[in-house]
Amino acid sequence: MTSFNFVLFDDFETLDAFGPAEVIGQLPKDYFLKFHSFNGGIIKSVHKVPVDTLPFAEMDSSGILLIPGGIGTRKLVNDENFIEQLKFLSEKAPYVLTVCTGSALLAKTNLLNGKKATSNKKAFKWASSNGTEVNWVKKARWVKDGKFYTSSGVSAGIDMTLGFVGDVHGVEMSQTIANRIEYIWNSEMDNDPFALA
Amino acid sequence: MTSFNFVLFDDFETLDAFGPAEVIGQLPKDYFLKFHSFNGGIIKSVHKVPVDTLPFAEMDSSGILLIPGGIGTRKLVNDENFIEQLKFLSEKAPYVLTVCTGSALLAKTNLLNGKKATSNKKAFKWASSNGTEVNWVKKARWVKDGKFYTSSGVSAGIDMTLGFVGDVHGVEMSQTIANRIEYIWNSEMDNDPFALA
Repeated sequence: MTSFNFVLFDDFETLDAFGPAEVIGQLPKDYFLKFHSFNGGIIKSVHKVPVDTLPFAEMDSSGILLIPGGIGTRKLVNDENFIEQLKFLSEKAPYVLTVCTGSALLAKTNLLNGKKATSNKKAFKWASSNGTEVNWVKKARWVKDGKFYTSSGVSAGIDMTLGFVGDVHGVEMSQTIANRIEYIWNSEMDNDPFALA
Repeated sequence: MTSFNFVLFDDFETLDAFGPAEVIGQLPKDYFLKFHSFNGGIIKSVHKVPVDTLPFAEMDSSGILLIPGGIGTRKLVNDENFIEQLKFLSEKAPYVLTVCTGSALLAKTNLLNGKKATSNKKAFKWASSNGTEVNWVKKARWVKDGKFYTSSGVSAGIDMTLGFVGDVHGVEMSQTIANRIEYIWNSEMDNDPFALA
């Protein structure tokens, strides 16, 4: 069993976390989903979904990390303690997945420097300003560079996570899951209908 | 402000609740999202997402109701106290939306009798067995009959909720939200790629 750790914070974007949670949760008992925040306790998404979280200190740091975006990232990029902890956890994790402006948080750790990454197309300028040494990709549903997966906005996290499942467990598994959740998977990383002109 | 009440229970399907939560949460301050369960307290989705809920007794029963599906429904259809409360709340609600096998719970209240409804195509036989007087629609992404909206499986809940937003706030709003969450909306109720042969 591998831990799949969700990094939550006040005002995270609801679907950024729970789209991927649905996909990973469909895998046959490979992963144990866990929900963490810096101090633990009840964390509310921007849409007021109250999630009971464990503190970072209790995280199984050998697990995979998923970092959602959302308006809460605007404040967090300037929180040195948070970014330092996120860097520590991201270095340890075998894979780090970000959705939407979650890539801005990861960029702040400098771990994306020299790597390809993407973000929400509605907040691309802001997100990319948080990592001037990152090779930001403007047109991509999601991007993979080594152990780092970064996706475009919100629902793109579902497509990316199905892509991650395909890379690790084979694309047949991704299709099985997509079919089971009655989801039409955009399986092409470069097929980005929401890219800027 | 209208309450938008999510009915949660042990082993609800994660995305059934949080796909619609993302869509409704995007509306400009029209709705206040609230998460309820029979007794309140921490409720875990089938994928172990721990949500802090309020008891049914504290629900603003003038609000809209959303009932997710998930494996937890298999037990709940036989829970007379739960079904009785759900009937009371569904009668009061101006709209009732169900996702996936959530329609089996609603069917058990008899409020769907003589009405059109749909459900998850992977659990259609079981779901429909819970309401023999319901006009079950085998091929539909979602179905609307009066104040009742019922959708097909999991991600169909996102399409249905965007449809609901379109009916209440205009289709332009649905498109704006779909665009903002970078989601390709299947806007045709009858376009059901996962229908049984």
